[in-house]
Order: sequence, then structure tokens, then C-alpha cells
Amino acid sequence: MSRFVSSMRPLLMAAAPTAARAARPVFARHLAAAAAAAPKPAELSAAKLEITKTTAPKTPLPHNELVFGRSFSDHMIVAEWDQKTGWSTPKITPYGKLQLDPSCTVFHYGVECFEGMKAYKDKAGKIRLFRPDMNMARLNRSALRLAMPSFDQKELTEIIKKFVKLEEKWIPQEKGYSLYLRPTMIATQPSLGVGPSSKAMLFVIASPVGPYFKSGFTAVSLLAQSSYLRAWPGGTGDAKVGGNYAPTIMPQVEANKKGYQQILWLFGPNDELTEVGTMNCFVYWVNEQGEKELVTPPLDGTILPGVTRDSILGLTRKWGEFKVSERKLTMAEIVKASNEKRLLEMFGAGTACIVCPIKAIRYQDKDLVVPLDPANPTAQAGPLTKRINETILGIQYGEIPSEWSVVAE
Amino acid sequence: MSRFVSSMRPLLMAAAPTAARAARPVFARHLAAAAAAAPKPAELSAAKLEITKTTAPKTPLPHNELVFGRSFSDHMIVAEWDQKTGWSTPKITPYGKLQLDPSCTVFHYGVECFEGMKAYKDKAGKIRLFRPDMNMARLNRSALRLAMPSFDQKELTEIIKKFVKLEEKWIPQEKGYSLYLRPTMIATQPSLGVGPSSKAMLFVIASPVGPYFKSGFTAVSLLAQSSYLRAWPGGTGDAKVGGNYAPTIMPQVEANKKGYQQILWLFGPNDELTEVGTMNCFVYWVNEQGEKELVTPPLDGTILPGVTRDSILGLTRKWGEFKVSERKLTMAEIVKASNEKRLLEMFGAGTACIVCPIKAIRYQDKDLVVPLDPANPTAQAGPLTKRINETILGIQYGEIPSEWSVVAE
Repeated sequence: MSRFVSSMRPLLMAAAPTAARAARPVFARHLAAAAAAAPKPAELSAAKLEITKTTAPKTPLPHNELVFGRSFSDHMIVAEWDQKTGWSTPKITPYGKLQLDPSCTVFHYGVECFEGMKAYKDKAGKIRLFRPDMNMARLNRSALRLAMPSFDQKELTEIIKKFVKLEEKWIPQEKGYSLYLRPTMIATQPSLGVGPSSKAMLFVIASPVGPYFKSGFTAVSLLAQSSYLRAWPGGTGDAKVGGNYAPTIMPQVEANKKGYQQILWLFGPNDELTEVGTMNCFVYWVNEQGEKELVTPPLDGTILPGVTRDSILGLTRKWGEFKVSERKLTMAEIVKASNEKRLLEMFGAGTACIVCPIKAIRYQDKDLVVPLDPANPTAQAGPLTKRINETILGIQYGEIPSEWSVVAE
Repeated sequence: MSRFVSSMRPLLMAAAPTAARAARPVFARHLAAAAAAAPKPAELSAAKLEITKTTAPKTPLPHNELVFGRSFSDHMIVAEWDQKTGWSTPKITPYGKLQLDPSCTVFHYGVECFEGMKAYKDKAGKIRLFRPDMNMARLNRSALRLAMPSFDQKELTEIIKKFVKLEEKWIPQEKGYSLYLRPTMIATQPSLGVGPSSKAMLFVIASPVGPYFKSGFTAVSLLAQSSYLRAWPGGTGDAKVGGNYAPTIMPQVEANKKGYQQILWLFGPNDELTEVGTMNCFVYWVNEQGEKELVTPPLDGTILPGVTRDSILGLTRKWGEFKVSERKLTMAEIVKASNEKRLLEMFGAGTACIVCPIKAIRYQDKDLVVPLDPANPTAQAGPLTKRINETILGIQYGEIPSEWSVVAE
């Protein structure tokens, strides 16, 4: 992944004027001439941040009325990029509508990428972010994959820290609650040619959210899906881009109609497990060698390099209590493990839920039961799933010391 | 394709409330109750069209300054859709910015699809469209693939006819010139959950364009690409959705940098030819059986069902002068045909250019020369490529009678 990205970076930087020249000769030559005379494009800079506070502050909803991504805080971050001048002054402005030409690239060719991260308020009232460097790095990689501009990751982190401090009243001070942050980059060149956008907009909006599972875990049933695919080698499965999501909605509707909450996305002739809904996928089992092992599919280009995924791998490797593997897993292996009572737990992992326990998989017209907690028939999550959840939650709220939790100060 | 779509349609219609119920229980139950009491959602209706003319009409650019998709006409069509109320009154309004909440689905999950079509002015001054029914049907299929609403195709065609008549001054009356039309549908639900959008916007903008090749054909060199893929089975390659385009830009920049104008998108272990840039791909050759044959890849789900593609197949089949096939073609077959001097012509096909002659393919570190016109060493297109271009052009401008050319009256 990082090798791929770092090899792309110089290419994209160097290539953009050439590509433009091929596609639109006169304009591009004009641009190139202008670029030679013009100063270096500006970098995104937190020091330049301008804040305009709202004159009509809203009241956050009561905790029990919070629905993911439906209500938003008073302000938003906006910064615009232009091929010639670089990044504009970043601004925190009152939350409000974007005004965009209908010809903008984002409306036609899906040139858009985003991140999902959260700001947490700890018991002492400090505001914390969880591994923001991971989100910033991924946003840069996603942007480059779509020929959009890169930015200085530390600068955007600084701007976000100032933003979450300004939006403090929007971060519920209760464990499990947080302010969901949605950094987004869209291509805003007002023209219909398919090519690198000469303009982009970076914005961050924020939505107060409650725990994914309001009253303890609720394990989900999955419909294994091999007719529709989420990603493919040579595609964008490892980037967080809009076009990865749109095609999943109709199959998800279909799965819901059949009574399954999420899709287990399979790939290839051997029905390899890839992701669960919009989450990474983990299997905890006794492998064929008789070892306890936690397995998740490897970052082969079709898997989103999830921050929660990486955190789970890091934590469990540090624990050193069982084998931890990133490798391909097929449905045949899962079925065999289930038949041989070697399947221990399965869960999805992502920012929204941390972990999401799985209780069943519909595959080839059969229901495969996934164990939850054998010691507790009414439990909705297995012991490892729970332990991972509690550990990450503890880190996010500053109760377990970790460099992953970054205080906004 | 049509089998797939028709099987999806009732599913999507029926499934939406169920899916919403699974994803967001309280809200969806409220919606379902409202739906039971409310009248049937409104259909898109041309009879309801409201026209607000601009008070600041612009002057079209001189013909020689027209660049594809950079300047737009005075007005645009807009219609909004809501899950509860259906289609709003369609409007023709002055061309202007869209005002959208930054949380709208279109900015995050690539839920957007579009069409490309043209309005032509014939010698008698009549305004003509080319097979608009094909574009309307495809837009509906693309929208359904992304769980967006469908519309009555005849109604939108009627609205577009009224629009192009209003924009008459924007259609240059010269052969090869036209008014490019961009019908677009975007998902506008202001919330971050990944699911079927409860709101959508349909708009049509128009850009006056000149001929793709300003002074006769210019044949292109292709870079065969098998590391990045345009589409795959179980994806959205057969729908005209934004997410198909964003991932192609960076590889296109890379190809341009190496001196190739377009990418030849390959697929699979046998390097099957799929598309050329954003065009369908045609090969004219003497096949292994010694027959003259025009071949284009079949609509297997990874190929866009192009209007120009379909027109070329229809025309050449009607001519009955050579075999016409929709079947898979591998690079090995092309290389063999080239070595055996059986390769006659290759071209891309799409609305922008009608046909785009191909002169070379870079494949596995070798340059494969594709013949243009053996009878004329300076020609930039082969005889079949030229004949197809002239025939379709003749139909589009009403010079060759055909039911494909529809007069807006």
C-alpha cells in the first residue's frame, strides 16, 4: 500500500501538466506558462486558519435522539485548492450549504474521497482524537488515487484540533458518545472533460453520535455475496473513495429485504472473505494446526486499510496470547472450521462500531451459525470481541494510556 | 443487461422501506406510516414544466473557441425527487450553482449517474436529437443500480425537447457542431448513513461543442493497461455512474505522460480488450476463418452499452457486407492478427467523437502498429472507420433519413 502510494506521488505531481497538455493543448500551454511565472502553490496551513463563528448557534439534540450522521454541529472546516495557487486560507465557517457549479467534476465522475474519525471527551473534559495521523495519511492516499491534491497531514490535524475545541458543546461527555468527524475532498473544476481536476475543496463536517449499539451489543446476520463485488485488484478497494460505496447500496437493500443486516463481501472463485458491510472482517478460530488464531484478510489492494483494523492487529499482537495473521480466508475454510467446532468468533471492525459481532452467515443456501459466547447463551458478543471493544474504548476515552489517543490542546 | 435490470426494478421498489426499517427502525416506521396515508408519489411530468428565462443572456463563444464541456448555455433543467412526494415540478431555470448540504450523499458515496447526448441543427434549421430513448433508458438503469429513483423516459425526452428549442441559439448550425447535453442524477439526502437516498436531483446542462477532430481525423496511440482495471463482473461497468470514471484519471495521466493519448483497458488473465479511454472498442479484421469481421466486446456487465456502439452494430449488420460479432477478444488474438497482416482497422466509439481511429497499441513493452488506410499513407482513418463516421453524422444532421434522428418540435 504505502509502496504503491509513494511510487505514485512523484508521478502524479510531475504528470499533471503533461496530461493536461495532451488533453487540452491551448489551455494547458497557457497554464504551463503561468506556472513558470507564478509563485509556488501555497501549502495548507493551520497558522492561517480564519474562524467565523455562527450568529445562530443550534442546540444539540438530547443523547437519545442522536442518529448517525443526521444532525450536524454549528461550524465546518473549508479549504479550497487551485492547481495554480495551491491551498487557500483554511476557514472555520458556520455550517451551511456548498454552492457549486452543476458541471463540477464531483457530480459527474465521482472524484471524491473521505474519512471517518471521532472526537471524544474524557472524564476530565479533555477532547481526544484517536490516531488522527492514520486518517490524514489515508485521505492523502485516497486523494492521490483520484488525481486530487495532497496536503500536509500535520496541518490538517492542527486545524481539526482547533475545530473540535470550538465545537466542544457538540461532543457529548458520556462514554460511547462522540463527535463523528467527516473530512471530505471533492473535485470542483467546473467542466465536463474527464481528467485531473484543476480545483478541489476539502471540508470537514461533524455529527454528534451515540454508541453504535445503544443497549449492549447486537450480533448481526450476514448474507454472503459473490454476485456483486465490493472491489477488485486494480480498482480502488484500498482507498476511501465515493465510488466504492454507491454500488453496494442496492445489494445491501436486497440483503436487508431477505432479513440480513449486512453483506459479507466475497471475492474470486474460492469465495474469499473480504469485508463485512463497510467494515473490515475478523475471524477468531482454532486453525487447522490446532492453534488459536485471529485472522483478517491482507491489504492486497482490495481491502480498506482500516484504522480500527490496524489497531486490533497492533493490540492483539502486543498481547501475544494467540497467533495474529493477515492472510486470505475462504468460505470453504470457514464452513470446515464451523463443522469441526473450531470457529470461535467473527466480527466486523470499523470506526462507527469499533467491533460488530457476527452471529450467522447465509452462504450457498445454508445458514452457518457463528458462535458468540459459549459460556453465556444470551450474550451478543464473544469474549475476544468484547475485550477488544473495551480496550479500544478505554484508549479512546483516555482511561487506558496510549499514544494512539491524542489530546486536542 | 435488460434481464438484470428488469429483475432489479421490483426488488428495489419493494425493498426500500424494508431496508430502511432494518437500518434505522424508528424513522422508517414513521415513514411507512406516512406513506400509507399519503398520496402516490408524483411522476416526472413534462406537462408541468415551468420555465424561468434568464434576465442576463450570454453570448455563445465563436466556433473556434469551443472546448468540450467548458462553456454552458443560458439555462438548465432541474427536477427534484423525494421518497415521499415523488418528482417535483420540473423546471427550466437560468444556469446557476447548485446549493447542497455538505452531508449530501453525492459528496460522500458517489451516488451519481449521467448521460452524454447531443442536439444537432440541420440545414433546414430543425433541431434534432439522436436516439434519445437509448440515453433515457440507460439513465434509468444507472439510477436503479445505485438505488436512485426511476422516471418516465418519454416525459424527460419531452422536457429535453422543450429545453433545446429554448436554447436554440446555443446550437451551432454547422455540420460537426452540436449542443452537448449532460443529463445527471445525484443523491441529495443530507445525512451520512450509507443507504438508499431519500432525495435526488435530476439536472440537465448543455455545452456547445465543435467536432472532436477539428481538422479531420487524428488517429490515437493506446497504452494497453492491465494493472488498473476499468470494470469487473459484479461491478458497475455497464452503468454510466460517476465511480467508473474517477479511478481512470490517474492511469490516464500516467499514459499521457508516456506519450499515449488513451488507455486500452484490458481484463483478466487473457488480457481481453474491453474499452478504449471512455469509448467502446471495435476491431475490424480478417478472422482466423478468413472472413472479414467487425468485432466488439459483448455486454457481459463490464462494458458500457454505448449508443454509438449499438448504432454501429445496427448499421453494419444492415449493410450485411461482413460478419459483425459481439464477442470477447484477447490481446493474443490481436497480436497474431497483426503479425499475419489480418488486422484491418481499430477504433473507439462514443458520443463525443462518433469514432476515433487507433494507429498503435503499446502492449507488453512492444508497439503494435494498427493499420489506417493502406491505400493512402497519410490518412488518419481507415475506410470503414470513415464510412461509419459519415453515415452516423449524416443521420444525426438529418441528411440520411432514419428513425434514429428525432426532430424536437
